[in-house]
Amino acid sequence: MKRTLVAWVEDRPGTLNRVASLFRRRAFNIESLTVGHTEQAGTSRMTIVVDGVRTDSRKVEQNLRKLIHVLRVEDVTERPAVLHDLAMIKVTTSNGTRSEVMQIAETFGGRIVDVGLETLVVEATGPDERIDRLVEVLRPFGIAEMVRTGRVAMACDEDSRSGRRRSGDG
Amino acid sequence: MKRTLVAWVEDRPGTLNRVASLFRRRAFNIESLTVGHTEQAGTSRMTIVVDGVRTDSRKVEQNLRKLIHVLRVEDVTERPAVLHDLAMIKVTTSNGTRSEVMQIAETFGGRIVDVGLETLVVEATGPDERIDRLVEVLRPFGIAEMVRTGRVAMACDEDSRSGRRRSGDG
Repeated sequence: MKRTLVAWVEDRPGTLNRVASLFRRRAFNIESLTVGHTEQAGTSRMTIVVDGVRTDSRKVEQNLRKLIHVLRVEDVTERPAVLHDLAMIKVTTSNGTRSEVMQIAETFGGRIVDVGLETLVVEATGPDERIDRLVEVLRPFGIAEMVRTGRVAMACDEDSRSGRRRSGDG
Repeated sequence: MKRTLVAWVEDRPGTLNRVASLFRRRAFNIESLTVGHTEQAGTSRMTIVVDGVRTDSRKVEQNLRKLIHVLRVEDVTERPAVLHDLAMIKVTTSNGTRSEVMQIAETFGGRIVDVGLETLVVEATGPDERIDRLVEVLRPFGIAEMVRTGRVAMACDEDSRSGRRRSGDG
């Protein structure tokens, strides 16, 4: 089972390097790692997805906490959380298939962000497995290129009334 | 000016570590780095945003090319490209402000992905500066938490008829 860790780190040179070195040295098996800005200047936020079968996520958590410039680490796996990935998929199209690809994208809640003569670019966000399914459905048309961000996680409020336990898992 | 590089790398242990070490050793100033799956199993794709004033992006490009397991590097800055970022923003709300926050999110093309008693989570994709503006508009309501993926880039086809030179820049 995949486990999702969120780490808040100081925005200093070398922080990513220390985290990547730790994973390499300890041979931790990381599915994805995403780093981006937060609501606070000077603080970045990493979302780390660990293959829970091959790597003990508690060890990853403990080791991350020991690193300099790591402010906080939280395992959000058991919490209700929104776990989403952004994908941009460039699909080969012709006049005969374009509208079908557009309809598929819409069905998956995606958007068309570029249209060319021979391709179009579908953007979609959602849980990993929904994006995986979208990719499988588009594959027969021909996928020229794809880019994915890796998972980002936002824990829901404990009072959350959205009625679901969690959105997205793997 | 920000410059955007795309690097295709083999999905091997230590690749991220080597890239992060290179940036640290050469003191390259990196705005964001995103790694994710591609259309091909075994290949990952990195999007690297370089502060073009403080760091010569051609040097970054040349040095990346020399690394083992780096398959290809492309500077997409001058090309028509879709440059998007995913943000999830948890906004503090009450019964009086919830619908206003929802309308703002919608205006920016965002979606509400969780609603709690005291917060809601807005998801938005788009060029950095559009997300920045959304964050500024939501800030007076109170931002409890935010996560961003960093920029991912997809070059448009040369034949692209979407009518715009590029979507998003910085």
